[in-house]
Parts: sequence; structure tokens; C-alpha cells
Amino acid sequence: MRLILIGFGVVGQGFAEILRDKADELAQRYSFKATIVGVATRSRGALYHPAGLKIDTLLKAIAQGHLNHYPNTTGLKRDVDIAAILEQADADAVLECAYSNFDDAQPALEYCRTALRSGKHLVLANKGPIALAYHELQTLAREQGRQLRFEATVMAGTPALQLAREGIAGSHINAARGILNGTTNYILTQMERGMAYEEALAQAQALGYAEADPTADVGGWDAAGKVLILGAALFNQQWKMADLQVEGIEHITRKDIEVAHEKGERWKLLAEATPEGGKVRPVRIPQYDPLATVQGATNAITYTSDLLGHVTLVGPGAGRKETGAALLDDLLAIQRYGE
Amino acid sequence: MRLILIGFGVVGQGFAEILRDKADELAQRYSFKATIVGVATRSRGALYHPAGLKIDTLLKAIAQGHLNHYPNTTGLKRDVDIAAILEQADADAVLECAYSNFDDAQPALEYCRTALRSGKHLVLANKGPIALAYHELQTLAREQGRQLRFEATVMAGTPALQLAREGIAGSHINAARGILNGTTNYILTQMERGMAYEEALAQAQALGYAEADPTADVGGWDAAGKVLILGAALFNQQWKMADLQVEGIEHITRKDIEVAHEKGERWKLLAEATPEGGKVRPVRIPQYDPLATVQGATNAITYTSDLLGHVTLVGPGAGRKETGAALLDDLLAIQRYGE
Repeated sequence: MRLILIGFGVVGQGFAEILRDKADELAQRYSFKATIVGVATRSRGALYHPAGLKIDTLLKAIAQGHLNHYPNTTGLKRDVDIAAILEQADADAVLECAYSNFDDAQPALEYCRTALRSGKHLVLANKGPIALAYHELQTLAREQGRQLRFEATVMAGTPALQLAREGIAGSHINAARGILNGTTNYILTQMERGMAYEEALAQAQALGYAEADPTADVGGWDAAGKVLILGAALFNQQWKMADLQVEGIEHITRKDIEVAHEKGERWKLLAEATPEGGKVRPVRIPQYDPLATVQGATNAITYTSDLLGHVTLVGPGAGRKETGAALLDDLLAIQRYGE
Repeated sequence: MRLILIGFGVVGQGFAEILRDKADELAQRYSFKATIVGVATRSRGALYHPAGLKIDTLLKAIAQGHLNHYPNTTGLKRDVDIAAILEQADADAVLECAYSNFDDAQPALEYCRTALRSGKHLVLANKGPIALAYHELQTLAREQGRQLRFEATVMAGTPALQLAREGIAGSHINAARGILNGTTNYILTQMERGMAYEEALAQAQALGYAEADPTADVGGWDAAGKVLILGAALFNQQWKMADLQVEGIEHITRKDIEVAHEKGERWKLLAEATPEGGKVRPVRIPQYDPLATVQGATNAITYTSDLLGHVTLVGPGAGRKETGAALLDDLLAIQRYGE
């Protein structure tokens, strides 16, 4: 499978490392062999080589700050135009792993369109294009007979979307409800252990969970982006952020947490989607709810369906190799379905 | 998709009901259409009609005690020889839903061989043939270019096998550890609430969770059958019951449960499989383990893997429609993979 990566940050690099480290295992277990023929970044260069790029060399170049550190070899093209490469390259799949932008999802959305129109499978870690234009992209993919997969966008490599769409395909899902932001769950967990909100947030920032500007996490917006994706992928809805009820954890106090604890309950920032709408808000849930024991940066989701009642999946929701794994699993699914 | 059912007890009937009730939904969502052309039971008759059997009529006949109550129609064959039908019928898939037998898995195992040799996909709810002869059947399926699926055998319609084998296909699983028997978990849960073992067992029997002879459940043997299946499906092992360390919950007392409770721990009957071996035994686990909050007859499994660490799936492990759902999900997967 010949791959083009758009974006080469933590997720793209994590994926490339897995591909390098697991080459033999994947060939043996699944007769799966993948070559990265192109890597394009917004500000750190772009490379294309029809015979394939060396992963170790790519990782070394980006570690030095720019893909231009990749040494010259015959046939290598530098600073290629992304759209041109997407259209013309001999590649089977495009992996969009640039940062998510929920305003217009650009330039990623346009790259996604070009990739599908050029007959390539499309795999995303970037949430923007799915949150804003799932239906358009899915229609394009179907027209082209290509696959659109985006497991990484919800709970990283924990296969929340595959479970809902393939694992329990015969069940009709009525609701999805989950802990879909690790940073806020980490903060709430630390507050349960006695920390004040500000201290827990500072610790999350020190650990790299939360950004310097933590609004997207603590305000519930990152989780809301995932609600948009669940609405599209499970309920055929194309909500906008403004359609959602979104409330963050900024106003939860140690006192709130203590009061809940006395009643055997816990505060969690829950992201919810039903066919009727979506919301993100802090909720007090009983300690026997499978979501209640989800600790630290771990994520979880409960699907409620006609045949199975509640099915809950708990696992990592972020991380270099954890998100890279989602891209690999999507490619393996593409191969299973006969490319 | 033309189907033959072997066994028409709770699981087979549950599946047939789903197929009837969801015919329109499945046609619309997946262009999936299935017809039951044959049903064979050990002691309640066997029917075959190349044009298809009516599900409502089948259910009425079996409710009256015997498939012979199915009315005469042109082309209907009664008391057909199962092996002959498996060989000669024009069918796409065989669903083996007879009761599990871990001694020699017969006569189901022989039917499974015949079904695959005759070029039919094979879906099982019956644990015996997978526990005892997975590799033989998988090899046969591969030779014939047919699929062998058995989601129902572990956690009913909660897709524990699909998650491990497809959802996180790119990860290398090192260990599986779960609550795979609902009866014993129900008993332990009731004991935590103050019941004595004998009382909780009697209640489980009254509710239909436990058999009159509860040995298979409380002695850990039902869970052990699932460990054999996990060993085969995940680790390429073909263990026998005698290879496993199996200990039941008969000796757990209220006192044990209280002592654990004081330390913030809970007793659970855990089924474990690693490449090195399998076991079933009561274990005290900390209350923050996602398996610790699994209540009543619910099941759960945690997979530990190289890329994702711990991923836990919680859901129903038994039930008429819950197990029927697994058969449907397997058929939908067969269709997705291009039959």
C-alpha cells in the first residue's frame, strides 16, 4: 500500500514509527506492506519519492526541524505542491494527520476532496473535515469506490467508531455517551484526589495533556468536536458547533466533588449524541456506571442500542503510538475489505 | 444470503426473531437480505425449503414443541438428513447454534466440517467446535475461501472477538483478562450486597441465569471454554481443558468479600489468556480496575497490547436477542468482506 501523509506532527510521526517497527509483524500476520511515498507539511517542507521514502531518514529530518534535512536521492522531489501530488501520485491512500480546525477545516478539507476525487482511500486523524463535511466526503468516497475511515478522531486507537459501525452493525444505536476528552478527565480525577482546579490544570499542562490555552479542553470544545463526528457517523446528522449545548468544567469546585462523593457519585465531563442532538456538560454519575471509574486521561464511550442495551468501551484517547495505531488499523481494514 | 440453522433453541430463535423484525432496517442500511432455507434440530425435527421458510411459522411450530407443526407447502422437505442438506443445499452460510459440548464437540464439529467443505460460510454460537478444533476449521475455511466467524461464543453480541481481531488488528495483544461468565458475576454481586453464596445461587437459578446443575458456571468451566476460544483466536494456541488452571467461586465466603471491601477491592471470577497459557480463578481486584465495577450478569474483557495498553469492553454476555445479535453481526461482516 502506497501512502501519502499530510501533516507530520506527533500523530504522523507516531504512525511512521509503528510502520517501521512492525514491518515484519504486519507482513507475517496480514501480508500487509506499506510504503510512504509522500509527506507534506504546512511549514516544514514536503517530499515525494515514487520509490518510497525511508522512514528513519524522514524521522531524523523532521527531528532537525524541516524535511529539507532529508538527503538527496535520485528521483526525490522537494517542496512539492500538495494538491498536485494528491492528484498525480501513484498512491493507494492519503492519511490526513494535520491539526484539527473546526472553523472551516481548511486547507485539510480541500486536500481530502482532492484525494478522494483522485481515487485514493482517505484516512483521517484530523477531526475538522469529518466534523464539518462528513456527508460530502462519504458521498465522494462512495462514488469513487474508495474508503473513508477516521478511527483516530474519536478515542485515538481505541476503536470506538469501528465498534459502533462494524462490531455491532446489526444493532440500532439510540445514544452515545462518553468521556471523550482526557485532559478534563485528568483534572477531575486529580480534584477527586484533593487538588484544586487551578492546581490540577497546571499539572495537566506540565504533563503536556493541556495546551497553554486550555479553553478547547476545559471549555468542552474538543469533546464537542467529537460529538459532531458521532452525530455524522452514527446518526447521519451534520450538526454545527452552534447546534450543540456545550458546557465545560471550569465551574466545578472541590466542594461539588465532595458533595457528589458523599452520595457515591462522581463528576464527569460527558459528551452525548442522540439522533435528536448533541451536548457536552459535566454530569454527576453513580459510581457503578462503567464511565464513573474511568480515571486520568483515559477515555470511554457507552453505546445504547436496541439489541444489546449498554456496551461500553474504555481505552486511551490520545498519545503518539495510541493515535498512530488508529491509522494503521484503518489501513488494515481497507486491506481486509479488498482495497 | 441463504441460511441454514443447526439448532433452534433460544439463540436460533432469537436470531430468527431479529431477522424478521429488522428485515426492512437491514435492507435499507446494508442492502442485507437473508432467507432461512433450512432448520435442523437434534430432537425437534428438521425442515428444508429451497424457496425459504417463513420465520413466523417456524417460531410458531417450535413453540408447539416440534418443527413438524410447520404446515405443508409445495417443495417443503421434512426430517431431512442434516449432513445431506449441508452438502447439497443451495445456501451461503450455516449457523451452528446447538448447545456447546466440550468433550468432543459432536455432532456439531462434523456438521461444521461438512458445511465448510461444501463451500459455505460458517458462523457459530456453539463454543465446542471452536474450543476444540479452531485451527482445523480455520484451515478448512481458508482453503475454501469461506469465512469462519464465532462472535457469539464469547460475550454474546458484545463484539469481544471482533474488537481484538479487527478493531485493534495492528496491535499485538499480550493478554486477555475478563469476566466471561454472567452467572458467577451475578452471584458475587449479590454477595457484595449481603447475600450468602447459597442464597445468591438459588436466586440466579430462579432467574434462569444458572442451570439446575450449576457446576459449569460456578466451577469456572463455562468461562474456561471461552479461554480455550481466546487462546485459539488470539494466540494461535489449541489448549485443552486439562491444560488450564480452573478454580470456581464455590469457596468464596461473605467474609472474604467483606475483607476485600475493607481494602477497596472486589472479588471477581477472572478468565485469563496469554500466549503462555490460560486460567480461570477468583481474584481480588482494586475498585478502579474497569473490571471491578462490572455488576450482575454483565460481562467484560480487558485486552493488553503493545500500542494501546489496556482496552476494556463491557456489555451483555448472554440473552436471547443479545446472542442472536452476534450471529447477525457476523453475517453482516461476511457481507462486508464481499461474501
